[in-house]
Amino acid sequence: MGLTLREALSSISAVGGEKAAKAALGALGFGPSAHRQPQPLKLAKDLGRGARVLVLGAGIAGLVTALELKRAGFTVQVLEARNRVGGRNWTLRQGDQVDYLDGRRQTANFAQGLYFNAGPARLPSQHRTILDYCSELGVPLEVLINSSHGAQVRPDLQQPAFSVRQAHNDTRGHLAGLLATAIQRDTLDDVLSAEERTRLLAFLQGYGDLSQALVYEGSIRSGHYVAEPRPGALPASVAPLALDRLLHPELWGALLHTEYPEFSATMFQPVGGMDRIVDAFYSRLTAEVQLGARVQRIRQLDDGVAVTYHDQHSGLEQVVRADYLVSTLPLPLLARLDTDFSDPVKAALRTTRNDQATKVAWQSERFWERNERIFGGLSWLDHPAKVVWYPSNDLNHKEGLLVAGYVTGEGAAAFGARPLAEQYAASREAVELLHPGHSQALQQPLAVSWEQVPFSEGPWLQREHFPEDAHALLEQPQGRVYLASDGLVQSGVGIWQESAANSARHVVAQLGERVLRQRQAEASHAVS
Amino acid sequence: MGLTLREALSSISAVGGEKAAKAALGALGFGPSAHRQPQPLKLAKDLGRGARVLVLGAGIAGLVTALELKRAGFTVQVLEARNRVGGRNWTLRQGDQVDYLDGRRQTANFAQGLYFNAGPARLPSQHRTILDYCSELGVPLEVLINSSHGAQVRPDLQQPAFSVRQAHNDTRGHLAGLLATAIQRDTLDDVLSAEERTRLLAFLQGYGDLSQALVYEGSIRSGHYVAEPRPGALPASVAPLALDRLLHPELWGALLHTEYPEFSATMFQPVGGMDRIVDAFYSRLTAEVQLGARVQRIRQLDDGVAVTYHDQHSGLEQVVRADYLVSTLPLPLLARLDTDFSDPVKAALRTTRNDQATKVAWQSERFWERNERIFGGLSWLDHPAKVVWYPSNDLNHKEGLLVAGYVTGEGAAAFGARPLAEQYAASREAVELLHPGHSQALQQPLAVSWEQVPFSEGPWLQREHFPEDAHALLEQPQGRVYLASDGLVQSGVGIWQESAANSARHVVAQLGERVLRQRQAEASHAVS
Repeated sequence: MGLTLREALSSISAVGGEKAAKAALGALGFGPSAHRQPQPLKLAKDLGRGARVLVLGAGIAGLVTALELKRAGFTVQVLEARNRVGGRNWTLRQGDQVDYLDGRRQTANFAQGLYFNAGPARLPSQHRTILDYCSELGVPLEVLINSSHGAQVRPDLQQPAFSVRQAHNDTRGHLAGLLATAIQRDTLDDVLSAEERTRLLAFLQGYGDLSQALVYEGSIRSGHYVAEPRPGALPASVAPLALDRLLHPELWGALLHTEYPEFSATMFQPVGGMDRIVDAFYSRLTAEVQLGARVQRIRQLDDGVAVTYHDQHSGLEQVVRADYLVSTLPLPLLARLDTDFSDPVKAALRTTRNDQATKVAWQSERFWERNERIFGGLSWLDHPAKVVWYPSNDLNHKEGLLVAGYVTGEGAAAFGARPLAEQYAASREAVELLHPGHSQALQQPLAVSWEQVPFSEGPWLQREHFPEDAHALLEQPQGRVYLASDGLVQSGVGIWQESAANSARHVVAQLGERVLRQRQAEASHAVS
Repeated sequence: MGLTLREALSSISAVGGEKAAKAALGALGFGPSAHRQPQPLKLAKDLGRGARVLVLGAGIAGLVTALELKRAGFTVQVLEARNRVGGRNWTLRQGDQVDYLDGRRQTANFAQGLYFNAGPARLPSQHRTILDYCSELGVPLEVLINSSHGAQVRPDLQQPAFSVRQAHNDTRGHLAGLLATAIQRDTLDDVLSAEERTRLLAFLQGYGDLSQALVYEGSIRSGHYVAEPRPGALPASVAPLALDRLLHPELWGALLHTEYPEFSATMFQPVGGMDRIVDAFYSRLTAEVQLGARVQRIRQLDDGVAVTYHDQHSGLEQVVRADYLVSTLPLPLLARLDTDFSDPVKAALRTTRNDQATKVAWQSERFWERNERIFGGLSWLDHPAKVVWYPSNDLNHKEGLLVAGYVTGEGAAAFGARPLAEQYAASREAVELLHPGHSQALQQPLAVSWEQVPFSEGPWLQREHFPEDAHALLEQPQGRVYLASDGLVQSGVGIWQESAANSARHVVAQLGERVLRQRQAEASHAVS
């Protein structure tokens, strides 16, 4: 299958409806990505000597671009509008402030040692580029637990919550039992040989933990019924849930999200917070990054580029020139800048739209670990807050940082638009619905709606509004200007920091190749 | 369902055959356990003052017994035959020796920093007792990755290996497609209402990632086909495997083992090796544990017990008396001792049989991480070595300890009986079958067949040969003698260190209750 995202969406929507489609893909942030091989960078160490490159933005794409160009001998200057580096790789700790575009301000009041990854929070095994940077730059990693069978699901608020473990195994059991029934009724004899039929029935009994009569009557896999064991007996399993309690698209997240390559075991996180990656890059680029530099204008010259920016520190407008420019600004923000890009490029940039996403975080005593034996993973419920996400760090400690509400896809815009107090209340309500009596442990709420964060204005691009021809155009250099972004196709249909890093390496390779050709041309000219 | 193990086995065997049954349960070590609540111990601090208890064996059951009795004021002496504590909790490092009953000796030659958990290697979230001891005694834990979608399966050696990811998702897809076909043929209309039918079809499309025509044609969940992405397109998924390649009982381990409560996320391991737990207990019991004390005779006296042991260090036979005795010796070994237990007790002990299990470990460069993005988890293949188990510790380091072959259940006795060189060769072959070209990286093999390890003689009891009435009898005290063991029913139908610890706490509670009643009787006698 090589569906476009839109085709994939419409295929799912055809039966499950728009909500199901959104649940299936929207719950993931967005669709799965390609695992493009990392761009091998073999630039000569002095390739860039004498060449000057401006990099706009010090998120992951900007930092990778700057580090790799610096290593190849380029003179690099990074203009970053914020007074911190990292972009959407943003880890909040005690005292950090969240300033919204609309003027609202929150301050993180978490206890010392707690941290909140407001942006990316997961590194899959396949994200080789960013993981290799972690190895190379000395960023210690630990396992990110993306699914725990002890976590809870509540797809129907009229019914009590049940475990992810039970969702998986009762679903599998019921479906295996129904299929066994159909096979025994000889209704699939045209598609199954006699041998397949026999093997399939045997397989289904084990797969679904069916009874001798090939009926699903519950399984110890769905959980133990806690009772005094009698000698020699296996413990009883919990009573199976009826199939109709399991047929909810809201269950798809719990059942399926870890099946997508980007979300499946084994996953990682940096020890101490996602911004440990940012720190590692920045420590090698302190001299190159200029903070508080807000870009206002881009002009292409005959022999280079000129960028005008407002320096927050001096209050002055500055103009800086370079031979080349790599912009890693979010494309919708770049679209609004004063540039002299061609009309088609401007039009392509204007097709891009930011998506919305909100995370709500709390400091809390770890009741989920102590009482419910949930260590990491997510719980899912039919509620505007959508999920409760348990920390994978510092397991078994007294307190932790609970993300109660990670709202993406359908409902994200509406959720983010609600007053903060309502967002906190909704978050608390979600916790109470999954863990009755425990929401009182939640303290020091903090919400981050990325559409409200200056210089990001969204968590990622809405890909369904990004036409293929616009994609294709923007991955080409515009004169001496290159674009790098996690949203660009040159990184594969990528997501997360991996795509940002791969996009940056792609651009660095393109630029390196151009400079190399130019040097060769100059050399041959000098000789002839 | 409240099946006995034998019923469960016969139920699975009925369709899948004995091999399937063994695969389903044997691959797990043995059947799942109850999660009995930890025995609350609220013994008064000076309850045991003046009372002396002998504990036989310094494995987890013996260590827990000794620590809890010591805390309650008892005078405790632990007799341990080996020159180390821990029993089957045995972590091997550079220079450690493995001496077999038949005289063969191996020496661990792993590089500094590598370790091999020859015995227990996993702590599930539900194993509250042992996890609580880890917290209390200060044993740092990290996540044990029990399943990775990047790992491999090769249920049929005539065909190439494929990923655990693909096994899961192609199986789910095919079965969902077949069930959708059956439903659309109206063959289940008597068991599904019209509404259920509609909801189920929608659910199956999402669950199995079916096409619009409700056919399984492959899924991105099964993995990406690595190709140059074209603009705006989702990457192509790998071609789906035919259903008949998936109908192998040998796949059940990969598909289902993490569904059993004891094996599902989230799981833990102590940082640095499983014996960190042993170290933590032993540091509190150094004065109480006597190493090299090989018990030979148990006698019950009117007012106590007498145990004769051979002291390896002095070479002398010693007799020691106490008020009570707690034996944590493996039951088949206790059955062979010179005791004056009643005939029914002796008969019950003689019903117990040890099982067999072998692990083969290697030092190796981490090709599985670097080349194949496998971080922890297990690969499964149709081969005498059965599984390859990747380390969860020190991920992304250069070298690691690979367990290539964990042979339990059917085939374990035969494997363990082979010459060591053949075991190593089989282990290497298994790695080569899963990771062609990489078995040459394997160095410094070490095999541990538990049936060959003195004072254990097996990894656990064969439960199917342990009659219920024997169970029931052995969980009662025999005069002043108590038995604690991970194999006894008092710990629930338990497994692993959790059962050993719970069994020990159960016995300590029984003994504490008895001493308390006795003290109360003495006090009332003194008053009257």
